[in-house]
Parts: sequence; C-alpha cells; structure tokens
Amino acid sequence: AIVDATADLLASGPLRGRHVIVTSGPTHEPIDPVRYIANRSSGAQGTALAGALAALGARVSFVTGPASVPPPPGVDVIAVETACEMLAAVQGALPADAAVFAAAVADWRMAEARAQKLKKAGNGALPVLQFAENPDILATVAQMDHGRPPLVIGFAAETENVIAHATAKRARKGCDWIVANDVSPATGIMGGSDNTVTLISDTGPEPWPSLSKTEVARRLAARIAEALA
Amino acid sequence: AIVDATADLLASGPLRGRHVIVTSGPTHEPIDPVRYIANRSSGAQGTALAGALAALGARVSFVTGPASVPPPPGVDVIAVETACEMLAAVQGALPADAAVFAAAVADWRMAEARAQKLKKAGNGALPVLQFAENPDILATVAQMDHGRPPLVIGFAAETENVIAHATAKRARKGCDWIVANDVSPATGIMGGSDNTVTLISDTGPEPWPSLSKTEVARRLAARIAEALA
Repeated sequence: AIVDATADLLASGPLRGRHVIVTSGPTHEPIDPVRYIANRSSGAQGTALAGALAALGARVSFVTGPASVPPPPGVDVIAVETACEMLAAVQGALPADAAVFAAAVADWRMAEARAQKLKKAGNGALPVLQFAENPDILATVAQMDHGRPPLVIGFAAETENVIAHATAKRARKGCDWIVANDVSPATGIMGGSDNTVTLISDTGPEPWPSLSKTEVARRLAARIAEALA
Repeated sequence: AIVDATADLLASGPLRGRHVIVTSGPTHEPIDPVRYIANRSSGAQGTALAGALAALGARVSFVTGPASVPPPPGVDVIAVETACEMLAAVQGALPADAAVFAAAVADWRMAEARAQKLKKAGNGALPVLQFAENPDILATVAQMDHGRPPLVIGFAAETENVIAHATAKRARKGCDWIVANDVSPATGIMGGSDNTVTLISDTGPEPWPSLSKTEVARRLAARIAEALA
C-alpha cells in the first residue's frame, strides 16, 4: 500500500509524464590496460539532481560515469566509463523533454589507448601521449537540428573568471541554461557536500546562495518543472 | 577482557616486535586542479597483506594511495596521493625489518601540474603534457647503502611475459622478492577478489595456485615471518 501511495504521489508530481536525461560523475579515459585519466568529480551534484527530478515525478535516464556516490533510487541507471560511451548512451536515451549534463566529461582521450601496459624505456625516455578531442556531448545535443530536447542544461566547473567563462560557454554550446560553479581546490566543492552556483540563462547570471548539493538539486529540479510546465 | 586477550595473542605472534612497511593502492598524479592520472589498483591485495602482517603481531606502517577499499584495522595508516608523497612517507617510516611495495605507483607525473584548469584552445589544438619520471620507491629502498630493511619485496603487475618481466625487475631493482601477477583485463584480478601470483626469489620463480587475495596475503605474511625468524 505504501508503494502504491508513493507511486500515486510520484505520478501526481509536476514532472509526471516527462522524461529527463541526467549525466553525472567523471569519465575515465584509458591510457593502457592499467592507467587512465580521471577527474575529481564525485557525481554528488548530478546524483542529487536525478533524485530530485524523480521525486517530482519525472522518468529519469541517469547516465553515469564511475562516480564515488551510488545512484539515487527510482531512476534508470546507464553506467558508462568514457566520454564516447556517455555520448552514445545519451543518444540512445533520446527523445527527452530536458537533458541536464552534470557529468565532468574528459575533454580529451588518448588518440589510441595501448593494448599492453606502457613500460619505462630504461633509458629515461618519457612516453609521448597523443591526445584526441572527445565529442562535446552538451554541444552535440544542444545543437541538434531535429529532436533537440526543449530544455538543455550544461554545467561549467571553472577555477577562474567563473561567470565570464560560463556565459561564453552557454553561447558557444547553444544550450539554454548553464549552472556555473567555482571548483578551485580552496572551495572544497569537488567532493564536498555544499555548492555555490550561478544559474545562467537568457536573462543573465542569477547567483544562488551557498547551499547543500541536495538543496541546489531541489531548486534546480523545481525550475526545470516550471520551465516545462 | 577480549581486547586484552587479543593484544596478548598479537603480542605473541611470530612478527611480535617487528616493524613492516606496506605500500598499497594507486597513486594519483595531478594534471591540473580537476584532472589526474590514475590506475586501476583497488588496494585490495596490499590491504589484505597489511592486515595479515598485523595479525601475526607486526607493527605495520600502511602507506596508502587513494584506494577503493578501506585500510585494515590495527595498522598505522599514512594516506598519500602522489608517488613523491609516497616515497617521503616510506622514508619517514623507516627503519623497518621488512618493506613490501604493493602499491601501483605511477611511473610518471606531469613535469609541472597546472595551477588552473586546462582549457580547450578553441582551435582544435591538443594539449601537450610534459611528463617527468617519478622516483622509483622500490629501487630507492632496495638499494639503500645504510639502513636498508633486511627484506625488501616488490610487486610486478604485468600484462605479458609475466615471469620474464618480473625476474628482470627483481634484478634491476635490487629487491629480495618479487610477487608477480598477470593483470590483463581478461584475468579480472584488478578490482577482483582472487589473485594468481608467482613468488620470485633468489631460488627462482615459485608459482602459487589461484587463491583469494586474503589467502595470498596470509601465505605471504607467513613467508615474511619465516624469513625474519
């Protein structure tokens, strides 16, 4: 009976019948069978957001890299490792009413990951790693000619000139909103429980107070529900 | 009373009064404030070994990188991130009766980690990462002129020609034993619960059967106790 009541409650939320894609966590880009390039994203903010959207009744496709927090209950989890896998998973989850790209996607991958473990040359020579640019998942979806989700939201984790970088990013990617934050090590945001974000839309930057990641997620989910109403 | 009895039991183990340094886990080498190079070591084998040595009465200095398993009870935990920090922690923990280097230390770090987040150039140009060779912790300790631990043990995680590579590694590093294993993705050893190792000493390679990492740890701890007896 409790399950039924919960289902009724969810079914009556403002996002009932809506499908939202949320990406979250870091990506890992293999260098060789044992090494990879990673980033310090814990997945906490994306996870909280996916949970908050589900709590408002949305069907959530949660595309997650190897995060350090578990996925929230009540979402469809699609686990990936690399940026290329993440793009494919997002494209496979379309169409959607909104897509929120909270993952910290690696900008680059190895041009060719080695099949065998990279070894020291013994003569002190250093390896040369050839990079290739990863697909830009946010821009790819934001600039779709057909079937673009009506609301496309990116995140911008910056360490300097946060608002300027994030405003430029919004224009360059063609997305509707950017959630910007300062992830300098001194802020403690990467891996921490609080977040201080600025929501950038076509009306300009809207600074939010310092909030728990859960509360940032609740407010953002409510704004998404408003926008889709 | 149980605590006292346990303390008595430990105090009477074959490694009572001995100090063993164990390194474990991966190292993370920063690229910039948000990115780093990592490796797939979970720290499971090093953690199991540290626990097994403590269970035989040893005082264990457990120098661990950012592992995905928690450290065992009853050891002195020294948490580090990079190879340089790990070497400093090991040197700070000396002298020791034995040192076991089970960590998967990055061979290379960035020549200079960037203070700000590395950004796409916008013209498709790819970043050039300048590498520097990390200190060789195993060789540094194995080749100490003064105060070398009487028993120095390395690990060799290989993906091909395991015995040949590991035998050459033992000679090159100047350590007493090498614990060699095949970490090819197909083996499932990285992140898995079992391990198939070959112990290489001055009497040559001694293949062990496939065992749980806990059992590999128990056997290795017992051999260390024998060697120090």
